[in-house]
Amino acid sequence: MKINLNEAAEILKNNDGFTILTHRSPDGDTIGSAYALCMALKQIGKKARVLCSDPIPAKYGYFTDKVSVDNDFEEHFVVSTDVADAKLFGKGLAEYANKVQLCLDHHETNTDFAEKTCVDPHACAAAELIERLLKCMDIFIDRDIANALYTGICTDSGCFRYSNTTAETHRIAAELIEYGADYANINRLMFETKSCSRMDLERRVIESMQFYADGKIVVAFVTEEMLAQSGVDRNDTDGLASLPKLIEGVKVAITINERVGEKFKISVRTSDDVSASSICERMGGGGHRAAAGCALNGTLKEVTERIVAESLRELERTV
Amino acid sequence: MKINLNEAAEILKNNDGFTILTHRSPDGDTIGSAYALCMALKQIGKKARVLCSDPIPAKYGYFTDKVSVDNDFEEHFVVSTDVADAKLFGKGLAEYANKVQLCLDHHETNTDFAEKTCVDPHACAAAELIERLLKCMDIFIDRDIANALYTGICTDSGCFRYSNTTAETHRIAAELIEYGADYANINRLMFETKSCSRMDLERRVIESMQFYADGKIVVAFVTEEMLAQSGVDRNDTDGLASLPKLIEGVKVAITINERVGEKFKISVRTSDDVSASSICERMGGGGHRAAAGCALNGTLKEVTERIVAESLRELERTV
Repeated sequence: MKINLNEAAEILKNNDGFTILTHRSPDGDTIGSAYALCMALKQIGKKARVLCSDPIPAKYGYFTDKVSVDNDFEEHFVVSTDVADAKLFGKGLAEYANKVQLCLDHHETNTDFAEKTCVDPHACAAAELIERLLKCMDIFIDRDIANALYTGICTDSGCFRYSNTTAETHRIAAELIEYGADYANINRLMFETKSCSRMDLERRVIESMQFYADGKIVVAFVTEEMLAQSGVDRNDTDGLASLPKLIEGVKVAITINERVGEKFKISVRTSDDVSASSICERMGGGGHRAAAGCALNGTLKEVTERIVAESLRELERTV
Repeated sequence: MKINLNEAAEILKNNDGFTILTHRSPDGDTIGSAYALCMALKQIGKKARVLCSDPIPAKYGYFTDKVSVDNDFEEHFVVSTDVADAKLFGKGLAEYANKVQLCLDHHETNTDFAEKTCVDPHACAAAELIERLLKCMDIFIDRDIANALYTGICTDSGCFRYSNTTAETHRIAAELIEYGADYANINRLMFETKSCSRMDLERRVIESMQFYADGKIVVAFVTEEMLAQSGVDRNDTDGLASLPKLIEGVKVAITINERVGEKFKISVRTSDDVSASSICERMGGGGHRAAAGCALNGTLKEVTERIVAESLRELERTV
């Protein structure tokens, strides 16, 4: 059942013993939203804790460490933040799939898996919705809550760069700064800190780039050898697919990720006028217009030739 | 003489035949501010043009191309935008050094070189001041003016990342989005587009990095050879000094830029607790706490040893 913010606020005020669930592979928005809500509930005397099936990255410590999480209480009410589908809880929290009483989210694709759902698809981040919810609940937004909410908003909006940012996003950011959000340090931590090995991997990825069609197509590689040489874990390769897309004039940016046994995972990023999903669908994959993916088997050379050929075909169709 | 926004608005409304000056090596803020003002003045029937001693980069074409600049008119009034010191006009506009009637700026260090100066040191960009000025003048902020102003604000604030961003910055951004600013495309153009040669140079700079003091000090190099190999012009090396600073755990990030004849220009970026200006002052340079520079002569090896030694000394003092 869909409910509005005021109804969600009432439900939270009338319950106690909260477990707040985040999605697996937690990002700044799911964690920031969950902790902001946890801090808010504790502010009004409730028991509350946050659960995640994966470890919460230490870099969020500037707000996660500020909460004395309650663990020794009877769970009466289960909430989720930034979770579009019960499958996204991950294995560790699978038992909760049918037990969520209130789902707070911003995904248009929300599957309505919870008893009650409060979703705003126009919010760029779940944290935007939570900020408004806390105001409905008359919560005092202190510095720690502001830091958690700002983190959700800045990470989901690419620091206000992406098209999901709205005038409302900026107005909420303005308020959070006034509430004391330490935005400059948060942004440095979220956007301007790379491990030495990640930096080295990026250098290798740039070096690997091959250009086709007068620079309109670029192919970058992330091989097992490159990962080993730079010392980067396979799980720390997020965002690499956007690297070749940075290059001026590129219409189709392809990143070929090597998996064991001549298997390759391919990410395609395109500029607005070329369809990444069309390219990937013809190879059994799919996705969105500007970002899609597929999996291919073969030698690196075969796989590269095939994806470049499909990209050329799509480029010709577009022109 | 310092004047306020209302006074500046009155002066602009009571004059005609405007030449609007930007600073040399023009950035998004000086150009965005100048063009926004030019479009506003033309909207109320005035003649106006923008002058810059350097060519205006083509990437700003999405708003600079929207103005039919007047060139055939009698110049009656000279304004400058985002210019803190008359020296910054550059050689091509040196004749204007003592002719500026109204200076619109946001630098605390403004030298008060103009007849009248309207400066707000709390504004993160001159464009923030211009936005408020246009409102005082009852200008209708159309999509093109909004794009120019948004460009000034997003470039000077590092897309709302830096500490110069304020709640007011976000509120103005919210309004500009409502006025139609094409923010997602502007941000892509400003922050997510690199030339192929620039990308190659960055790869070489990463490869050149040397670490000292358990990774607390990093030295990166930009040599003439690296510029030649990647095909990057010396003038296109802006922002390279922030690259080594991205690395996790780095307290002092040094970039050594080779000039001809064993001369080196050195940029130092530090985290908050270490003083970049102290390091550079001891070598005849200067700057701010987190960003400073100096020039050194000698072999590359000598220069590197000297700057690393000074950095080690400063690090020890800080601990």
